[in-house]
Amino acid sequence: MNWTVYLSGEIHTDWRQQLKEGCEAHNLAITFTSAVTDHQASDAAGDVLGEESNNFWRDHKSAKVNAIRTKTLIESCDVAVVRFGDKYKQWNAAFDAGYCAALGKPYITLHDETIIHPLKEVDGSAMAWATTPGQVGEVLKYIIAKG
Amino acid sequence: MNWTVYLSGEIHTDWRQQLKEGCEAHNLAITFTSAVTDHQASDAAGDVLGEESNNFWRDHKSAKVNAIRTKTLIESCDVAVVRFGDKYKQWNAAFDAGYCAALGKPYITLHDETIIHPLKEVDGSAMAWATTPGQVGEVLKYIIAKG
Amino acid sequence: MNWTVYLSGEIHTDWRQQLKEGCEAHNLAITFTSAVTDHQASDAAGDVLGEESNNFWRDHKSAKVNAIRTKTLIESCDVAVVRFGDKYKQWNAAFDAGYCAALGKPYITLHDETIIHPLKEVDGSAMAWATTPGQVGEVLKYIIAKG
Amino acid sequence: MNWTVYLSGEIHTDWRQQLKEGCEAHNLAITFTSAVTDHQASDAAGDVLGEESNNFWRDHKSAKVNAIRTKTLIESCDVAVVRFGDKYKQWNAAFDAGYCAALGKPYITLHDETIIHPLKEVDGSAMAWATTPGQVGEVLKYIIAKG
Amino acid sequence: MNWTVYLSGEIHTDWRQQLKEGCEAHNLAITFTSAVTDHQASDAAGDVLGEESNNFWRDHKSAKVNAIRTKTLIESCDVAVVRFGDKYKQWNAAFDAGYCAALGKPYITLHDETIIHPLKEVDGSAMAWATTPGQVGEVLKYIIAKG
Amino acid sequence: MNWTVYLSGEIHTDWRQQLKEGCEAHNLAITFTSAVTDHQASDAAGDVLGEESNNFWRDHKSAKVNAIRTKTLIESCDVAVVRFGDKYKQWNAAFDAGYCAALGKPYITLHDETIIHPLKEVDGSAMAWATTPGQVGEVLKYIIAKG
Amino acid sequence: MNWTVYLSGEIHTDWRQQLKEGCEAHNLAITFTSAVTDHQASDAAGDVLGEESNNFWRDHKSAKVNAIRTKTLIESCDVAVVRFGDKYKQWNAAFDAGYCAALGKPYITLHDETIIHPLKEVDGSAMAWATTPGQVGEVLKYIIAKG
Amino acid sequence: MNWTVYLSGEIHTDWRQQLKEGCEAHNLAITFTSAVTDHQASDAAGDVLGEESNNFWRDHKSAKVNAIRTKTLIESCDVAVVRFGDKYKQWNAAFDAGYCAALGKPYITLHDETIIHPLKEVDGSAMAWATTPGQVGEVLKYIIAKG
Repeated sequence: MNWTVYLSGEIHTDWRQQLKEGCEAHNLAITFTSAVTDHQASDAAGDVLGEESNNFWRDHKSAKVNAIRTKTLIESCDVAVVRFGDKYKQWNAAFDAGYCAALGKPYITLHDETIIHPLKEVDGSAMAWATTPGQVGEVLKYIIAKG
Repeated sequence: MNWTVYLSGEIHTDWRQQLKEGCEAHNLAITFTSAVTDHQASDAAGDVLGEESNNFWRDHKSAKVNAIRTKTLIESCDVAVVRFGDKYKQWNAAFDAGYCAALGKPYITLHDETIIHPLKEVDGSAMAWATTPGQVGEVLKYIIAKG
Repeated sequence: MNWTVYLSGEIHTDWRQQLKEGCEAHNLAITFTSAVTDHQASDAAGDVLGEESNNFWRDHKSAKVNAIRTKTLIESCDVAVVRFGDKYKQWNAAFDAGYCAALGKPYITLHDETIIHPLKEVDGSAMAWATTPGQVGEVLKYIIAKG
Repeated sequence: MNWTVYLSGEIHTDWRQQLKEGCEAHNLAITFTSAVTDHQASDAAGDVLGEESNNFWRDHKSAKVNAIRTKTLIESCDVAVVRFGDKYKQWNAAFDAGYCAALGKPYITLHDETIIHPLKEVDGSAMAWATTPGQVGEVLKYIIAKG
Repeated sequence: MNWTVYLSGEIHTDWRQQLKEGCEAHNLAITFTSAVTDHQASDAAGDVLGEESNNFWRDHKSAKVNAIRTKTLIESCDVAVVRFGDKYKQWNAAFDAGYCAALGKPYITLHDETIIHPLKEVDGSAMAWATTPGQVGEVLKYIIAKG
Repeated sequence: MNWTVYLSGEIHTDWRQQLKEGCEAHNLAITFTSAVTDHQASDAAGDVLGEESNNFWRDHKSAKVNAIRTKTLIESCDVAVVRFGDKYKQWNAAFDAGYCAALGKPYITLHDETIIHPLKEVDGSAMAWATTPGQVGEVLKYIIAKG
Repeated sequence: MNWTVYLSGEIHTDWRQQLKEGCEAHNLAITFTSAVTDHQASDAAGDVLGEESNNFWRDHKSAKVNAIRTKTLIESCDVAVVRFGDKYKQWNAAFDAGYCAALGKPYITLHDETIIHPLKEVDGSAMAWATTPGQVGEVLKYIIAKG
Repeated sequence: MNWTVYLSGEIHTDWRQQLKEGCEAHNLAITFTSAVTDHQASDAAGDVLGEESNNFWRDHKSAKVNAIRTKTLIESCDVAVVRFGDKYKQWNAAFDAGYCAALGKPYITLHDETIIHPLKEVDGSAMAWATTPGQVGEVLKYIIAKG
């Protein structure tokens, strides 16, 4: 079985890259999927459908175009990894976690100890909590490669 | 039909109270449900099952006890209102919104203009965005009471 | 068992009233539900959340507020009646029929012979086609009241 | 991931062709599916099962044979595009949109500004509204090809 | 809890009556539901919607009107009892059993030993096989009334 | 798209063979699946698990072993064809039709005019009724191969 | 909201009674449901349908009659409590826990520390682990009664 | 069709190996999946995420990491085989059986006659009971390979 792993959340560090490289080093049969991680492109996702003068509707249009991708990819993944950094609101990451929880889709959270308390509901429905991409890679290796 | 409305999110202002009073003034047949909104009690929800020395597991235990309630009430509501204040992480509110979205449960967001951008994914799946409890009350009145 | 019957579609004639009176005459235990049928109020459903200068977004906001009601009532009905008149686009009625079909919710169409051909897909998934409210009333009487 | 895109609605212009060519120009991995778009063949789909003297039943038989195809293809697509032209009733297109909405299947509408108002419920549940096949192609390119 | 028991199948003997009386004698809190059991009325269920010259379509119309009732009642029952007599095809009874099986709705079959072999698939998905209404009553009493 | 077509029902004539050959002649991309059609092997399906002295339990064991296959294949097919001959009870065929109906899986019935009336509920939920394997082949060709 | 709590597992101590009394003392609006807890009656549940000479089939028949009750009550509960004692196999309790887990139905386990290790999969999907009926009562009180 | 068969339960004998070899000898197109069967590795599955001083939480963490694998593999299998040996609690095997039952996933039990009685609920929802891996192989051969 080939596994599909959806990578949700923080886009300002290279955790996705680290995780992918780690899994490649283990030769794991994983397809990684993700939202569009180019921040500017993501904010402008709906612009091709016409300019908006109102900020709320510009964001709304882009959010829905992005959701065609994220909703489809989350629903077709086997496991998700949801990463929270130490900055920004990152409500989309928590939203994705709730989406996974309601679908019964297992997810692993990836965040520092400093934000354990505000993430307790998100961690409460997670299957595992990791603090480094290396740990996530080890968990995926165990889940997928172990005979 | 009696409607059940789940109130999720921020617990530091009296928006729940305002909304309830507004709906009562309109004589709407609504049962309001919610997570436990007493912050300290909520954090201690799992303590009766035994003390934990480790913060992560104390939070974990309490989060899961709370989830028995929130998951059940969200799944049995007709509409949710998800409130974001101007402080704190409030990842549980975004988590609830994602949970509703995946279930196809309609929800209304309640927040100021200042946080439109970080909430764009949450608003993108919402059925309405309001800035005051009074507006939410008007929407509920229209939905429920209109002949 | 009390039955809930959702009445969808055309709002310019008194077919809803005729059907209700017919069912009352038979003493049927039916709760009738419906979208808001006051056209002007329905178009303005989202206005309380703030004025929109752009027609598309005004309609969008109102459509979503109305959908909180219609989606909830369709999902909780036992049978729907979908009425098509001889004027207007009435795409919302066909949309409701498709929504019912996907949910496996039985529906009866109510329309004249003149529009059989453009309604063939909508009728193809219906459980019955009637041309008068009286016929719908007879069908409901048979379904509900027959020992 | 290869994406499957279902093309619903209007069959009198070459929008399907334009969209396919646009996507091919972008080298997108898309399988396009559709109802049978040969109008005469579609109306006659059930004739092989025996002639009908009654118009309603001829249409009914053909509609159901067509539904074996459309229902199966809609349920197995990732995204649908629903096109409304400026003529005809096109209730089947609105029906397909409602069907998608109930399944939680994302869809994009494609229509002119002139019919925004009668399509407000259909657009209200859509993930995007485009006015040209070129815009739909750009949205699909963003969703599918963006790294 | 009040239980709802759907009674499917053979309509030429008084097994429904016997079962109801047996359950009343035990004071069981059961609501019994059923298809319309008046054979002639059932065959004519669609006639109010217009006469049909073709037998197939007359049967088709009536079958669909009846299905509004049977489908709704089967989906809302807790247990079904499916009775096969020693005469007639009774394909509707086997159809109901298959419908229950796919929904995960438990059902009890009621038939003589002489037709064990042709009913093996129907019995294979049943929760119990009884040969008399009295036995079904005893099983229901055990399930419902036992402390 | 490759289509999977499940063939249910009568095993005493060569209708499966005729249908397959017809579809091959049209070069249709179809995988045909079916219950085990060797009657004696089917009745003995459970014997390897131990002899039974009691007829009911022998049939029961075999029916359940067969159901592992039929349930799995029906749930993974795109369309089913359900054939009724002029002899035998064939309750398993009606059971399969009911199973398909509850899953929303489209099916085509194949039977003579002489048994229209007892099959009215089974036909009422079918997408088409054919009287010859050739007609089924034409319908499948239309559904699958038409551009 | 009235809550329904299903009590699964061990029947040799009075934990059900203790829990009910505790909840009554708190005036909680709970309906408790359960399998039939009279061991001998439970083993004989199928006997009314005919004697069996073979132990496997006697157990099989009774297990299925019991499952009509347990399956229905588990599916209609809000929360389950699954109790494991220090004796016997109690595979039915672990089976119920797996059944709840697959349905997304929250459950609380109730067992001593001595069997933590063999119950790790069962506890891993539970929302809470308690060691006394009093603790379960406190958790239910918190979930249900807290404002 | 290639079949996927999940092997659950006892890990101290070579029944998995025997079954695989038997199926290979029959050239069956089966992919076998399983939990991690290396006992020590399984107990330590969560250790990479940080040491735990408390036994319950160490088990909990490992159980959840293992569940990412088992839940995913059970949900994607066609049939499960659940093996109970004559030693140990094996609550995880009964849990898997309950999980399968709630999903409507067919499973075969594999155990000796001596434990028929405590397994009656688990067997009651199974599609077959075998006492040797050879029998399971024969059943799979019949289900999969028979024309």
